[in-house]
Amino acid sequence: MTITVVGSVAFDSIETPAGRRERCLGGAATYFSLAASYFTDVRVIAVVGEDFGKRQEAVFQARNIDTRGIEHTAGKSFFWEGSYLDNLNEAKTHTTELNVFGSFEPKIPEAYRDSEFLFLANIDPILQRRVREQMPDVKLVAGDTMNYWIKDHRPALLEVLKGLDVLLINDTEARMLAGNSNLSQAARAVLALGPQALVVKHGEYGATLFHKFNPKDKATEPFRTAALLLDEIVDPTGAGDSFAGGFFGYLASQPEITPATYRRAMFYGSVMGSFACERFGTERLQQLSREEIDNRFNLLRELTHLA
Amino acid sequence: MTITVVGSVAFDSIETPAGRRERCLGGAATYFSLAASYFTDVRVIAVVGEDFGKRQEAVFQARNIDTRGIEHTAGKSFFWEGSYLDNLNEAKTHTTELNVFGSFEPKIPEAYRDSEFLFLANIDPILQRRVREQMPDVKLVAGDTMNYWIKDHRPALLEVLKGLDVLLINDTEARMLAGNSNLSQAARAVLALGPQALVVKHGEYGATLFHKFNPKDKATEPFRTAALLLDEIVDPTGAGDSFAGGFFGYLASQPEITPATYRRAMFYGSVMGSFACERFGTERLQQLSREEIDNRFNLLRELTHLA
Repeated sequence: MTITVVGSVAFDSIETPAGRRERCLGGAATYFSLAASYFTDVRVIAVVGEDFGKRQEAVFQARNIDTRGIEHTAGKSFFWEGSYLDNLNEAKTHTTELNVFGSFEPKIPEAYRDSEFLFLANIDPILQRRVREQMPDVKLVAGDTMNYWIKDHRPALLEVLKGLDVLLINDTEARMLAGNSNLSQAARAVLALGPQALVVKHGEYGATLFHKFNPKDKATEPFRTAALLLDEIVDPTGAGDSFAGGFFGYLASQPEITPATYRRAMFYGSVMGSFACERFGTERLQQLSREEIDNRFNLLRELTHLA
Repeated sequence: MTITVVGSVAFDSIETPAGRRERCLGGAATYFSLAASYFTDVRVIAVVGEDFGKRQEAVFQARNIDTRGIEHTAGKSFFWEGSYLDNLNEAKTHTTELNVFGSFEPKIPEAYRDSEFLFLANIDPILQRRVREQMPDVKLVAGDTMNYWIKDHRPALLEVLKGLDVLLINDTEARMLAGNSNLSQAARAVLALGPQALVVKHGEYGATLFHKFNPKDKATEPFRTAALLLDEIVDPTGAGDSFAGGFFGYLASQPEITPATYRRAMFYGSVMGSFACERFGTERLQQLSREEIDNRFNLLRELTHLA
């Protein structure tokens, strides 16, 4: 089935211990859609400026990602500059230029309206909600957010959460959203805000899945997946969005979605997140094969499962 | 088979968001031996002062732990005071009084000399080495250390590592010991210093096991176990030592030790670490049953394994 994703398509300048790249193609919607494209059809809604040209477009085309919802407008694309020199787990932001993204008003192409899956990447919750309301018939909606929205735009975010099936956030965000430092308790508090499921990402340690617990179904108990061990983390930018793409892309590819499907989706999320870190920007995500992905899925199973 | 452990037996005053306890029984050797006692026979080498009385002795007796190697001497026992008010993952030390521990010279009772397993808890590496040398015939030796010894007593510690089969340390310690921030690379560097296996503990996220890799045996590839999710972490003191006790106790209880045995041992380590956090000090570790332990082992499997 088809996923529509709304979020940022951007340029990133990134410095890590492995080197530096200027203005590579980035943005949450970009990482998400590339990762998800190995599992299902993906359609993007975003806004870009005049600096987004044929070369960037070709990255999406090569993965058969529908870009009719990428609006081209006068000005420059969203730009982020950051580094990970001291700590690969946390970016230090040097520059954020919203540019054309500052007045983004997501428009949903008619051709996208039959999408069964919707992913609301990390953008202003007011925009997330507007998109959600325009696609009332989707089968499953997942979303992301960040500390900034949690802290300073809480009422708008709470409205979004009511319309989400799955929320994917990191540890700090989950604890901040719940106002509770215990992960299990925080998860219950977040699930009470709306989502049926919550994925909490722990960076290099993996991620935990929480469902609204159904005592009749043991598979709704929490599930933890490890992260793969990488000999070199070249660039962690977009790892969380790639996790989301693998996770949601796999769900959308399945004929039936059960708690067991969610558990396998956690594995695919972890796998796609690990690939993202192997090269700068989206380089690695552009050139994968489904066989490589499934091999790494099996590797993750061997890394974590008793005989 | 029997484990001899050398390390601290102490009194701890602990403050956590769940409350405060004054002078509860603590010390690495105490947590380790209580946790290991559910799997095999344990003998302790330590030194205590006049404040260690019948009540403390009874805690060991109740678990059939051999205390003939606990030397009683004039003065006060090792005392530590710390809190976890801001961060349950990291203790803030308020007081450390070495007391009788400051002049500890481990003596190995004759009756201990046929122990097949030796655990060198976190003490001065000079003492760890002295004990190791006095027990040359043990089958398997594991040990722990901490940032202080890694930073300021490196030559002595490197001598200890040469005589270890298994080293158990946390993330920060592994990275510091190797001088490398990438976990896989750091693990290889640590294994090159002597140990056949390395367990890196990640606190609330679990732990990773690294072997010296044998390409003929796939089971020597790294293995990651999650930590159980606890609804309340009452007191994380001793969780790492309890992990070591469960891990090494299980190994010592097995007729044959293969890489697969190590993987199950990682699970038992995680289980015992989680129990330790459920009550203050050693309270929870004093009153477990093997059935509770195995139930939690199964819970950890369900938490992490695909169907």
